[in-house]
Amino acid sequence: MEVFSNSQLILLTFLMLVGGEVFTSMLQLFLDRFNFTQKDCVKNECSSCVSSTSLSHKIHQMELGSVSMPQSENHDQIEKNNINDKDKLKYNSLSLVTLYITYIPSAKNILQNKGINIETFSLFTIVSTFASCGYIPTNENMMVFKKNSGLLLLVLPHVLLGNALYAPCLRLIITFLKSITKREEFSYLLNNSKEMGYDHLLSTLHCWHLVGTVFGFNVIQFILFCCMEWSSKIMEGLNIYQKLVASLFQVTNVRHSGESVFDTYSISSAILVLFIVMMYLPPYTTFLPVRDQNDVKKDQNSLVDRIIFSQLSYLVIFIILICITERQSLKDDPLNFNVLTITLEVISAYGNVGLSTGYSCSRQLKPNLMCRDSWIGFSGRWSTEGKLILILVMFFGRLKKFNMNGGKAWHLS
Amino acid sequence: MEVFSNSQLILLTFLMLVGGEVFTSMLQLFLDRFNFTQKDCVKNECSSCVSSTSLSHKIHQMELGSVSMPQSENHDQIEKNNINDKDKLKYNSLSLVTLYITYIPSAKNILQNKGINIETFSLFTIVSTFASCGYIPTNENMMVFKKNSGLLLLVLPHVLLGNALYAPCLRLIITFLKSITKREEFSYLLNNSKEMGYDHLLSTLHCWHLVGTVFGFNVIQFILFCCMEWSSKIMEGLNIYQKLVASLFQVTNVRHSGESVFDTYSISSAILVLFIVMMYLPPYTTFLPVRDQNDVKKDQNSLVDRIIFSQLSYLVIFIILICITERQSLKDDPLNFNVLTITLEVISAYGNVGLSTGYSCSRQLKPNLMCRDSWIGFSGRWSTEGKLILILVMFFGRLKKFNMNGGKAWHLS
Repeated sequence: MEVFSNSQLILLTFLMLVGGEVFTSMLQLFLDRFNFTQKDCVKNECSSCVSSTSLSHKIHQMELGSVSMPQSENHDQIEKNNINDKDKLKYNSLSLVTLYITYIPSAKNILQNKGINIETFSLFTIVSTFASCGYIPTNENMMVFKKNSGLLLLVLPHVLLGNALYAPCLRLIITFLKSITKREEFSYLLNNSKEMGYDHLLSTLHCWHLVGTVFGFNVIQFILFCCMEWSSKIMEGLNIYQKLVASLFQVTNVRHSGESVFDTYSISSAILVLFIVMMYLPPYTTFLPVRDQNDVKKDQNSLVDRIIFSQLSYLVIFIILICITERQSLKDDPLNFNVLTITLEVISAYGNVGLSTGYSCSRQLKPNLMCRDSWIGFSGRWSTEGKLILILVMFFGRLKKFNMNGGKAWHLS
Repeated sequence: MEVFSNSQLILLTFLMLVGGEVFTSMLQLFLDRFNFTQKDCVKNECSSCVSSTSLSHKIHQMELGSVSMPQSENHDQIEKNNINDKDKLKYNSLSLVTLYITYIPSAKNILQNKGINIETFSLFTIVSTFASCGYIPTNENMMVFKKNSGLLLLVLPHVLLGNALYAPCLRLIITFLKSITKREEFSYLLNNSKEMGYDHLLSTLHCWHLVGTVFGFNVIQFILFCCMEWSSKIMEGLNIYQKLVASLFQVTNVRHSGESVFDTYSISSAILVLFIVMMYLPPYTTFLPVRDQNDVKKDQNSLVDRIIFSQLSYLVIFIILICITERQSLKDDPLNFNVLTITLEVISAYGNVGLSTGYSCSRQLKPNLMCRDSWIGFSGRWSTEGKLILILVMFFGRLKKFNMNGGKAWHLS
């Protein structure tokens, strides 16, 4: 990234801002409003020609609401308020990041050595993080700032604000505006979030579930990351506080910004598989064991059905567990032991297939003279714990028909 | 496997037969009949005390049908007929396999050298294949019989008969029995497959879909396997006919018997990922774009919604495509290029995350002196085709909200 000049960085910043989820969703709102105004005009001329049922429903709802000012103006006003609020927030963070870099010598030195303008760096980093781009003007991404915990903590909230927690924050801002201005439009917005047709305006229940899911995922990732990597090579030279902040920054970034403070290749395979799952899940993935009344009527499942995971989730959990039990071999003997061979063995056990990649002494990178090839499957070389987990997987696979309806509580969107 | 004596092999044969899906499902049928007879007695005493709604529905349906003999006897008769038929089939195959091994010197020599009894080998192999165990009395599994295409073709049908095609074959046998005996019980069985409560008795439509899915999967696997492995090391020494038969045998065994004619580790990564998916899918996975009338009413999706794949399926397809474009690097540089790093890059692109394992010259197994480390992501080292696919993945990930309802036509059971 260091090949880019200052003006190129500013151009990139602009592109990231325009391409980000928040800006594109605002654009959608703008287009919706345009449509709405047009259709509204048509409606005055001919009341039966509104083709879109959702739109007519929206208009109907709005007519029922006790709104005094025209809706399009209302929409406009709220949008402006939100953008102003977000802008203020971003400007404040920007100043904080600039201040930090100006007054903390270690961070300042890095940028000076690389010839990167401090203001450009701050603007670029905040916009990139908020737009979930994951670019940083330095070649090493955030790795050079591994020890600058303050900077990581300043950048961290924007990962969440521009992404998974955008909707809850939007709701919070509207609630705040409502309590200050006491204007009815805000009450209307809060109570009719679905009818507004803006994807990021969610109901209170949904927001709470979303916040719970995001923090739940982060806590699980954080604990597992710390357990696996605490004394590993990637943490060398960091004190306890720096380790904690860097780990938190890393796991938060996996959903969905992508900035990294550690060399991803050196992270253990178990964590990498977890990262793969976390990356796969969309930002608004929500665990919804309790649904809206309307949805409940549609499919009546027992509470157990709604809480248990899907088959795929259990399999990933098993693979991760085996990556943990076999972590030493995964490091020392990567050609025999890698996630692909382990995944293959686990899925094979689950499907009661029995296919195995086997084990070959000739594939060892550090040849062990005591090693003898024998006709046993790959799992024969695993640790006892790994074998026990594989036995569990086989039973689980055999009994899978009793658990095919799991995972319904998860809503990917 | 060669450490086992003849009598141990026979004991194992018995265990495989008893533990196989077909036998356990018969056991379920037996238990159901026991329950049914008991409840029927209770019903005669008190007509309102049958607790299970499905059972009462079953009895209700049976009473409506024009069946003259008592149901339990009917059940009994059919079961006996089926088992007799299956037994006859198995006995015939057994004699064929024994005959083949006795008269084809290359196969006979292998068993004689290993000191394995021909009859035991035949019985063990057929039972193991039919019960989807995947065990073969030789250490090398079927690899030693790679060139004995005749033997492979004799064993092949049992992979399907005892597994994915068991239900269609059961239906075929009942249809055959009906046309010969003209007895009404068989018509009743064929028309009321759901009410019989036997998991393997499926409706005609379901059977056709199942057969289509099984052959569809096999054709896809076969074509891909031949394309990727035709001139690879694992095919060395085979002529065209032997290559075709061995490939067909291998891909059929992945769902779900697990016998192998090739060294799994030497199979290219793209095929391994495909194998992982195939192993993950249960035997009765069916592509059901058209559903029964009752089901259609429950959820009204458009035809497009029912035909498109789920997100996960597309991702696996993309990973496989990239494993294909990068196959040379996967072979030469396994520490940098492996399925885990590629999967991570693809899911990262899909989730618009941007995390990458990077590329390090020091990880090359055969050091290339021209290699220079640089600060680009792992995908920067991919071929142009691989990069183009990754760009597609990023667009696909960005537009995922328009395709979250895919994959509904697939029914995993």
